[in-house]
Amino acid sequence: MLTLHGYFRSSTTYRIRLGLAIKGLEYSAMPVNLVTGEHSGETYKALNAFGTVPTLVDGDERLVQSMAILAELDERYPDKPLLPVSQPFRRICRELCYAIATEIHAPNNLAALKYIKAEFNADETAVKAWYAHWIHRTFEPVEQRLAAFDARQSPYPFGAAGLFETVLIPQIYNARRFGIVMDRYPILSAIDAEVKGDPRFDAAHPDAQPDAP
Amino acid sequence: MLTLHGYFRSSTTYRIRLGLAIKGLEYSAMPVNLVTGEHSGETYKALNAFGTVPTLVDGDERLVQSMAILAELDERYPDKPLLPVSQPFRRICRELCYAIATEIHAPNNLAALKYIKAEFNADETAVKAWYAHWIHRTFEPVEQRLAAFDARQSPYPFGAAGLFETVLIPQIYNARRFGIVMDRYPILSAIDAEVKGDPRFDAAHPDAQPDAP
Repeated sequence: MLTLHGYFRSSTTYRIRLGLAIKGLEYSAMPVNLVTGEHSGETYKALNAFGTVPTLVDGDERLVQSMAILAELDERYPDKPLLPVSQPFRRICRELCYAIATEIHAPNNLAALKYIKAEFNADETAVKAWYAHWIHRTFEPVEQRLAAFDARQSPYPFGAAGLFETVLIPQIYNARRFGIVMDRYPILSAIDAEVKGDPRFDAAHPDAQPDAP
Repeated sequence: MLTLHGYFRSSTTYRIRLGLAIKGLEYSAMPVNLVTGEHSGETYKALNAFGTVPTLVDGDERLVQSMAILAELDERYPDKPLLPVSQPFRRICRELCYAIATEIHAPNNLAALKYIKAEFNADETAVKAWYAHWIHRTFEPVEQRLAAFDARQSPYPFGAAGLFETVLIPQIYNARRFGIVMDRYPILSAIDAEVKGDPRFDAAHPDAQPDAP
């Protein structure tokens, strides 16, 4: 029995929804409202000391940190592996996923944006410039790596939707919200176009969640 | 044949030095000077498109992104695993390591500090406050998780030095450089004290590197 505590628009929660969908694992969704600060309350912190989303409860075990959860899922439920099983796919997929998770997502998450607004008086233009800086700094080499990747089977670089798409698609969704024009990334855009209409991706989309407005 | 391209004071490079030392793997060090911008030059970018350190070259394969490299090392060289092999150690270790790598390190890396100085006119006090914010926000729950962790075998929470220490020790080293007082984290401080004098940790310390001043 899997229960996913998260927020519809959180890109790390979206990663887990995609990972579960690709693996064909059923789960119940428990919304945690980041806007009202539910994640910082005592009830949620008793579940997850970090006060972060997502938390995946698997039986009586609580899994925290999205990249850790995805690695755990592949070990607990080895069918339909998210991470490619053979090299060089495995190492390149890991490289690109961790680049997006650490270099783009971490400085652009809600907590960091709140900080630069509150402490550095960043206005909307400054917040968008900060956001765009981290996107382009890493999407450029990601696009370049994929372009140079001989074994690429269009449109999925690693043959089928897996870990890379669970990390990439939420990041593109988030980037569009901040006005990033994706045209300069033709390979990334082609992957994003490809997943549209795929029921696994459609069901995991933020707009399809019970807590979406 | 392993070659580590990195910078003595980079905490992600330090992670890999520790991972290699704990696994007992020999390597050659190739310094990349982050201060003169060597990592952004054409030569280094031909090796690593992201222009980030570290890059670990294993035979004819290039491994990039420190958390990806550490996972690859455990698969390629399974002796002396960095990640605990049994549960709940494995999932808790992953959780804490990714929390530090994403929530603390990413907003506090050199690129982010440069940005807040250049674009938000952050002075030394403001930079230190930013740095401290990300440290305490995550070290507090990490300490709390370890305090609640029944199976903890003092001082190493997971029984022996491994992935957790490869991520924690460089983060503490970096935190001290920014004036963070570690006294409020007795468990983390005890681990930091324990590794002193361990030849694997001493040899991986920034001061012991060929490019240290």
